Amino acid sequence: MLQFKLKSFNSITILFHFQIAEEVAKLLELKAQLSNQEQATNGAQKFILKTPKGTRDYSPQQMVIRQRVLDKVVSVFKRHGAESIDTPIFELKDFDIAGAYDPMIPDAECVKVVQEILDSLDMGSYTIKLNHRLLLDGMFEACGVPSSKFRSICSAVDKLDKSPWEEVKKEMIDEKGLSEEVADRIGTYVRLNGKSELVEQLLKDEKLSKNKSAIEGLEAMKLVLKYCDLYETSSNILFDLSLARGLDYYTGIIYEAVLLGDSIDGGDVSVGSIAGGGRYDNLVGMFDPKKKQVPCVGVSIGIERIFSVMEAKLATTKEKVRTTEIEVYVASAQKNLFEERMKLCNELWKNGFKVEHSYKRNPKLLAQLQHCEEQGIPLALILGESEIQKGVVKLRDVISRVETEVERSKVMEELQNRLVRFNNVP
Amino acid sequence: MLQFKLKSFNSITILFHFQIAEEVAKLLELKAQLSNQEQATNGAQKFILKTPKGTRDYSPQQMVIRQRVLDKVVSVFKRHGAESIDTPIFELKDFDIAGAYDPMIPDAECVKVVQEILDSLDMGSYTIKLNHRLLLDGMFEACGVPSSKFRSICSAVDKLDKSPWEEVKKEMIDEKGLSEEVADRIGTYVRLNGKSELVEQLLKDEKLSKNKSAIEGLEAMKLVLKYCDLYETSSNILFDLSLARGLDYYTGIIYEAVLLGDSIDGGDVSVGSIAGGGRYDNLVGMFDPKKKQVPCVGVSIGIERIFSVMEAKLATTKEKVRTTEIEVYVASAQKNLFEERMKLCNELWKNGFKVEHSYKRNPKLLAQLQHCEEQGIPLALILGESEIQKGVVKLRDVISRVETEVERSKVMEELQNRLVRFNNVP
Repeated sequence: MLQFKLKSFNSITILFHFQIAEEVAKLLELKAQLSNQEQATNGAQKFILKTPKGTRDYSPQQMVIRQRVLDKVVSVFKRHGAESIDTPIFELKDFDIAGAYDPMIPDAECVKVVQEILDSLDMGSYTIKLNHRLLLDGMFEACGVPSSKFRSICSAVDKLDKSPWEEVKKEMIDEKGLSEEVADRIGTYVRLNGKSELVEQLLKDEKLSKNKSAIEGLEAMKLVLKYCDLYETSSNILFDLSLARGLDYYTGIIYEAVLLGDSIDGGDVSVGSIAGGGRYDNLVGMFDPKKKQVPCVGVSIGIERIFSVMEAKLATTKEKVRTTEIEVYVASAQKNLFEERMKLCNELWKNGFKVEHSYKRNPKLLAQLQHCEEQGIPLALILGESEIQKGVVKLRDVISRVETEVERSKVMEELQNRLVRFNNVP
Repeated sequence: MLQFKLKSFNSITILFHFQIAEEVAKLLELKAQLSNQEQATNGAQKFILKTPKGTRDYSPQQMVIRQRVLDKVVSVFKRHGAESIDTPIFELKDFDIAGAYDPMIPDAECVKVVQEILDSLDMGSYTIKLNHRLLLDGMFEACGVPSSKFRSICSAVDKLDKSPWEEVKKEMIDEKGLSEEVADRIGTYVRLNGKSELVEQLLKDEKLSKNKSAIEGLEAMKLVLKYCDLYETSSNILFDLSLARGLDYYTGIIYEAVLLGDSIDGGDVSVGSIAGGGRYDNLVGMFDPKKKQVPCVGVSIGIERIFSVMEAKLATTKEKVRTTEIEVYVASAQKNLFEERMKLCNELWKNGFKVEHSYKRNPKLLAQLQHCEEQGIPLALILGESEIQKGVVKLRDVISRVETEVERSKVMEELQNRLVRFNNVP
């Protein structure tokens, strides 16, 4: 698993990884099994760990797309000081965490990182929804939901991005056992979204303004929205009271990035979640014998989803994905020039060029040139007897098929110039 | 598993990977089990596949070193047109292989790739030993070894890099059942090594010159040594008749790169194999129902060994390995400059710089500067009230501790220039 840690002053652990949802689910399962085992050491309780899913096979083209996406994501991580780590999440408690950060600062940077990733991948329009666990808890309390039902109501609310309110309300009443009155109260809140003006509005709300947890969550939202302003992420974010994320280990801010598509009526519509996360200060501590709390804020990147979107996008543009990076092909125009070809290749490799030539001693020129066109190799150097005698080599621009003679001693310089131009073409 | 394929004209499969020895061993085991199973479908024969070894945990420093090594290795692969693949080795038969390469050309390129990797890693002196399976077979035959014993004698010969001849001879006689006379005949050959002059000498050898397989192997050696000359690998290679490599799936050339250290008497001594491989034309075909032959030549890079050597080397030079790539730290000299810091960070990230600042609102300046020195961050921008009023920012060179004032509008340009200089320092 690819995993990066971003931290400062050894204070707070910020984790970026690509499978955090599954990882965390596995950890919770492990935790549950461990306590089951403790309770039933002499019983027949079996200890089962899921085996990893089978790996998919990818074509070289897919591998290139995946690598491009990963490179972009990793370069954003590095811009924010991430280091690559190989430590299981439950061992992260090795770190010193003595109060060296102030509220919402790392959290706002996580949102910034998500913004930079989605911008650099150029995936189209998106929204990063934000909410706060304490606001959700406070709101449920203020609406009259018994605390034992917070979790199940939370997961019902989380369905609002796919289902209409009437359906979710029905589930709350029929399956989760809420009264219609309580459900309706929840409904007035979870259909709200906006920016800092919504925070101000809710801070004056009759019910919420009397609830300690709700006030705390709203003050935190106010702070993070201000930081998002300073980091210029405001245009991409939305404070959304229906964002609940099913998992119950979040302790503070929660966020989720959704890609937007055009709806039938011309507006935006979510076409799926692409990244998400939040603060989970208790999760790592669960695995500590002393239950020490470890401040943690994480971003999970839905990398498989991103791969699929990028693959689909490339299929539309019909871009031919090159699977090798060969820049120069060394061809021969007549027979018995094999050794000359090998010498020239060697010289080019020594100068750092990405080069190949035919593995046949005497290939046909046409076959060699066709190979360049099929493989998208931008330049070909053609060795011929007359050119060798003149001390020159033919340089062919593969796309335009224009050939020019270049002095043997100036080949490296000329290639360098041509490739700079080639690489600058978008 | 990291795996790269280098090919041209869809002709021959050249595989570079980091675990080929184990991979191939697993495949052979699988093959053996499959045929056992065929023979004993109604018996009690069990079908066991080994589980993968547990993964080691690495520190962030180790991760950096590993990444540096991998980057260098992969850049050599790419220079030779490799593409990254995700196909199990026994499925490679999807390829068209209709006779589109001539003997020893891909083989010589593999040796070249090994040379480029070891040179770019700057691991000290090394030798790439070469030999040929057909020469080994022919030599054993010419010495009077029964063909049923070729494989076991081969693995005895392979011990010559670690054990003296007398010990290997004893094993051949006592354990493998050769007569002393036959063992001595082998001994006259396997202690020979040299370059193309040795090939010429052996082509005239009384016994070998009468053996078809030996002649074929020697002619192949002659060709590959000539190509190595053209690719300028000659100074790093050694034709060595004791190189046998234990595994018996090689069908042509075999090679192995060994690092050299100083021996007590001032000469060179092998300190361990670091890469190896050869041609194994029958291996992939084994898994083909029609037993179609697939030309394959591979390089296995002992990547774990390389990591260990590089780690040990870095420990000697006492280089401090940076685990993040942060270039600029944004510090504040007084309280209440937190928002200014955030704005400046945002501007720097937008311009592609790798930047961090404290997660505390009001950290002490000394603590911030100490962090830069500990983390090896080259530059710090210090925001202070007087500087903000003057429209400048203080730029601190962390190593020299020299501070200069830079106009706010020229910060990006100045950082760019400084970092180019910083990155050019070896």
